[in-house]
Amino acid sequence: MELNDFSLIWAALGIGVLGIIFVLLKMRQVLAFDAGNATMREIASAIQAGAAGFLRDEYRILAIFVAVVTVAMFLLMQWQSAASFLLGAVTSAGAGYLGMYVAVRANVRTAAASSRSLNAGLRVAFGSGSIMGMSVVSFSIVGLTLLYILFDGQIAYVTSFGFGASSIALFARVGGGIFTKAADVGADLVGKVEQGIPEDDPRNPAVIADNVGDNVGDVAGMGADLFESFSGSIIAATTLGLVAVNPETAVLPFIVAGLGIVAAFLGSLLVRTREDADQEALLATLSRAIYASSGLVALFAAGAIAALNNILGWDIAWRYWWVVVIGLVAGNLIGWFTEYYTSYTRRPTQGIAEAGSTTATLIIEGLAVGMNSAVLPVVTVAVAIVASLTVGGPEAGMFSVALAGVGMLSTLGITLATDAYGPVADNAGGIAEMSGLPGEVRDRTDALDSLGNTTAATGKGFAIGSAVLTALALMAAYVSETGITEWDLLSPVLLPGLLVGGMLPFFFAARTMTAVGRSAQSIVEEVRRQFREIPGIMEREQKPDYKACVAISTRSSLREMILPSLIAIAAPLVVGFVMGPEALAGLLMGAIVSGFLLAVMMANAGGAWDNAKKWIETGEYGGKGSDYHKAAVVGDTVGDPFKDTSGPSLNILIKLMTIVSLVFAGAMGSGLLNLG
Amino acid sequence: MELNDFSLIWAALGIGVLGIIFVLLKMRQVLAFDAGNATMREIASAIQAGAAGFLRDEYRILAIFVAVVTVAMFLLMQWQSAASFLLGAVTSAGAGYLGMYVAVRANVRTAAASSRSLNAGLRVAFGSGSIMGMSVVSFSIVGLTLLYILFDGQIAYVTSFGFGASSIALFARVGGGIFTKAADVGADLVGKVEQGIPEDDPRNPAVIADNVGDNVGDVAGMGADLFESFSGSIIAATTLGLVAVNPETAVLPFIVAGLGIVAAFLGSLLVRTREDADQEALLATLSRAIYASSGLVALFAAGAIAALNNILGWDIAWRYWWVVVIGLVAGNLIGWFTEYYTSYTRRPTQGIAEAGSTTATLIIEGLAVGMNSAVLPVVTVAVAIVASLTVGGPEAGMFSVALAGVGMLSTLGITLATDAYGPVADNAGGIAEMSGLPGEVRDRTDALDSLGNTTAATGKGFAIGSAVLTALALMAAYVSETGITEWDLLSPVLLPGLLVGGMLPFFFAARTMTAVGRSAQSIVEEVRRQFREIPGIMEREQKPDYKACVAISTRSSLREMILPSLIAIAAPLVVGFVMGPEALAGLLMGAIVSGFLLAVMMANAGGAWDNAKKWIETGEYGGKGSDYHKAAVVGDTVGDPFKDTSGPSLNILIKLMTIVSLVFAGAMGSGLLNLG
Repeated sequence: MELNDFSLIWAALGIGVLGIIFVLLKMRQVLAFDAGNATMREIASAIQAGAAGFLRDEYRILAIFVAVVTVAMFLLMQWQSAASFLLGAVTSAGAGYLGMYVAVRANVRTAAASSRSLNAGLRVAFGSGSIMGMSVVSFSIVGLTLLYILFDGQIAYVTSFGFGASSIALFARVGGGIFTKAADVGADLVGKVEQGIPEDDPRNPAVIADNVGDNVGDVAGMGADLFESFSGSIIAATTLGLVAVNPETAVLPFIVAGLGIVAAFLGSLLVRTREDADQEALLATLSRAIYASSGLVALFAAGAIAALNNILGWDIAWRYWWVVVIGLVAGNLIGWFTEYYTSYTRRPTQGIAEAGSTTATLIIEGLAVGMNSAVLPVVTVAVAIVASLTVGGPEAGMFSVALAGVGMLSTLGITLATDAYGPVADNAGGIAEMSGLPGEVRDRTDALDSLGNTTAATGKGFAIGSAVLTALALMAAYVSETGITEWDLLSPVLLPGLLVGGMLPFFFAARTMTAVGRSAQSIVEEVRRQFREIPGIMEREQKPDYKACVAISTRSSLREMILPSLIAIAAPLVVGFVMGPEALAGLLMGAIVSGFLLAVMMANAGGAWDNAKKWIETGEYGGKGSDYHKAAVVGDTVGDPFKDTSGPSLNILIKLMTIVSLVFAGAMGSGLLNLG
Repeated sequence: MELNDFSLIWAALGIGVLGIIFVLLKMRQVLAFDAGNATMREIASAIQAGAAGFLRDEYRILAIFVAVVTVAMFLLMQWQSAASFLLGAVTSAGAGYLGMYVAVRANVRTAAASSRSLNAGLRVAFGSGSIMGMSVVSFSIVGLTLLYILFDGQIAYVTSFGFGASSIALFARVGGGIFTKAADVGADLVGKVEQGIPEDDPRNPAVIADNVGDNVGDVAGMGADLFESFSGSIIAATTLGLVAVNPETAVLPFIVAGLGIVAAFLGSLLVRTREDADQEALLATLSRAIYASSGLVALFAAGAIAALNNILGWDIAWRYWWVVVIGLVAGNLIGWFTEYYTSYTRRPTQGIAEAGSTTATLIIEGLAVGMNSAVLPVVTVAVAIVASLTVGGPEAGMFSVALAGVGMLSTLGITLATDAYGPVADNAGGIAEMSGLPGEVRDRTDALDSLGNTTAATGKGFAIGSAVLTALALMAAYVSETGITEWDLLSPVLLPGLLVGGMLPFFFAARTMTAVGRSAQSIVEEVRRQFREIPGIMEREQKPDYKACVAISTRSSLREMILPSLIAIAAPLVVGFVMGPEALAGLLMGAIVSGFLLAVMMANAGGAWDNAKKWIETGEYGGKGSDYHKAAVVGDTVGDPFKDTSGPSLNILIKLMTIVSLVFAGAMGSGLLNLG
């Protein structure tokens, strides 16, 4: 094989196109399901309108941003970079839009299908999830392979695709994350606490906003996040492959990613269950599908590598196979650790419930569990790095780490499906409640929802772990681009860069947490106003104005999203252009280390508090209404912005900062101050 | 001047000896004050017995540890290193013992003096603080100069002095920190919450343990912490000075430290106030004294440098003068930022109170303030590093950063005095309450105590900032010792080292937080037992068994102290000897970055929650007993282990890890795995 022989790249492109065809067929199938009775349709269409409204307003802001950056890149850099950036932004936004379009239609269909059977409900909800999962990986690989072929393998141009995807991801994660938690907290504070009406009660003016939030945060936001990881890991691996000893290896990331798409498709066929399945059986179904996909990737990769041995030689080919396997294993391990720390069948989360004799001790225990839960994922990533560098050999260098990242993310088509399935099931439960479906339907949607909570936690762990590997690989690509592979410890900029970089995630987390509080406050005021000014809401004589709450959530979350996002983009540019590329390398290192830790801590503390509450609600420690439960409700509320806003946003922060650095590495010179 | 001309070192030794004489005279003066009436003496002697008992038990454990390490070092390394280690441990423990011996006697004398006047109370309490401050700096400089002269300027032997001091510091901070918060929380939970008796009520069996805790945590623990920073910064600067272009500069750290002791002594003479002074006037008094000392150091240093110009040349001499000034300014700035974020006269803390409409929002806001409060100290340290490296010039390298650290710490004699004054004033208030002194006396001790809370917060910020500069300088010395001044980014061990290093402070913080919870639980059980089994406590007919509570606090805090402390010592040794010195360098960097951030966040969030509660207690948001107040009490309790156990322990964690690395750098080779 020659470097300019793109036959294998064309094959990956073909798989991506097949993936898109699968997505379209699956969409037809899911949308063909029965959408329930008139009440259900009405509720669903309110959620659809809200979600569409949010995305429209969000994309309007993003369009301005993307237009400005595209023009700037066109004027200051090459047109190819500008085009890649634009395509990355558009495909990421497109995948997010598609996933959400289906999710807000699958929710009501899941509720309707659950009236028939649990299995039917599972199939609809998981089908919607796999549309999101498959469109993310397919859009990504199609965009990347097209650009790679178009620019004749000049990966530096393709890098901007990742920048475009990252920008969309950051705005989507931060904006969606603020929306979802502000609506959730706002709805609960007035509805549950002040008016004493249950969750998902249609009398609550913020109830639709709350359901919209699940979709914009957990579907669109999560999708954009992982679109970025998937694309970023391929870009980093290809960049490093081209400068490694065997530039032919640059094709490997595309092959592994393509094979992963096939494996994920096959794995998802396994998702079906018995009618009397309990939560454990449901979870086992999804786990089996994920493990099967991982196994298939390893198998396919072995085949591909055997086929490539004439180019790479057996020794090197098998080394890379092991690297891919290391990535797969590490990804599954991190998911498993996350589940361990956040599931209420396990000791850590039960310990939080046990500490609920006072609110303060429950908060302390939750924070401690969050901090502790960082230990094993960090060790896993560290061991994976050492192992892939050792197995890959010194010639491959950081290419091996990047390839392990591609391996970890290769099964994304199915891991993301299990993740994006959650909000659909959650919404289905809400719709079942609001439209007064019978208890047994609600029981089924509850079972599906509860499964979704577990997969959401696992998905978050996976998102963080893969973000770290991607960011490290992108940073290595940046370093190799700038040529500063040796760091001078005595340089006057490295240490300060590290410290300031380490600080950014703390600042970012603080900023996004308080943004949730401010947005929730505006929703609280609107909900209170409606209860005061619209008579007859409580007596169900008059409908609340759902749209007003959605509009306020949209406005305030989009307003709060802008500043932190711009800071994330500006920080590496300012440091790089003023202090020089070495200071920037330090900044990235510091941000990756502290961002990783803080993201794991926040996501897991939030998940564990949430489930500690659920554990108490099963009747432990006095059950619902007890003092333990009251303490757990406080913990859950503290955890909301932790796990759904700040924590996940940090994944993107570290990836975005590294890819911005990589894109602009060439233009930095030695910085204005020339301190290096 | 010749390198082996130790005349200036002898001068520094002389200043240290004068400092010890001052300490002894001051002790005589403070102990000569009236110790109050019989009730007061009785309470005070219970506190004295408790504190002495804790230290005795703690030192017994430490003695075993120190003996084992000394013997091991004697057998495996040079006798000089073993001797230095022993001396470091003994002087650190000695300074802590002395400071605490005086503090538990000055408390009752402060209460008695406050019966006469505010000024008299302030003089006694501050006198006690300056004994702690001066004995720390004097013991340190005497120990260091003696060893330096004895070993003929071979600084590598002297390094172990810092290791000895660090070990004592870690155990003292962790053990004392757990004791103080466990006793505090335990006393409050049963006394205030279950029995409804006020704070410092003599009927509470844990009240003496609570007062003992203030001393073992905030006097002995803080003293040992800063003893280590002071010694460590001098060791690092001297080590780096000897390998820098002008080895004569190695004498500068001793000179600056010695001049600082003189300046601190002169500054402390300014501490007196008008009788009608309010809190602001009291604070102004202490600030004036600190600023005056800082100014004097700059002045004296200018004189010393003018005198040294024949050795260094004007240009270089003045560069170093600026470096010292940079350190002084940075230290004062960090203290000021800490005050800004934690004082209830400022916006951040008031914002926490404002968020108290629900407990969850108050917790979120406090965490956000803590995270935000890391921004400015990090930027200050980063700018101080860039500035000192730039001003110091490329030949001096990291020596400049170390010298800035020495400059920052030079006024420690007085900054530590204002800090160690706090617990004395706090205890004085408790004694005044328990012995039923008149209201106006209690008002005066309250004024002194409230001042102590502010200076304690500032002191914590200063302790963290100086710990970071010291740790960075020690790490630079370690790197220069191992010769790995260039870091290969593609090395298979650097990145994993950074990640694992960054994780250790999270693990350590989680571990110490939960230790407080466990220890508090055993005290709660003991207090409940006493109320149940000793009849007549509530009717004041029978005295509770104070000693039992002290004994339980002692036992459980010492038990909980051992594991985290051993991990802190073992981590760098295991990584260094197994993975090699480069992995260890990464580990140290990661730990310093995340330890710094976490320490600032935890200390300031804790301080801000505490003061948000106090702000509400002044009558804001409904005052005491309101829902806002209840929320703030929860925040304060969450903040207790943050600010008094985990946060401060992290300072020592990062210093101890770096100094252990420096001491054993020579013995590591390239690690067992030889991965570098």
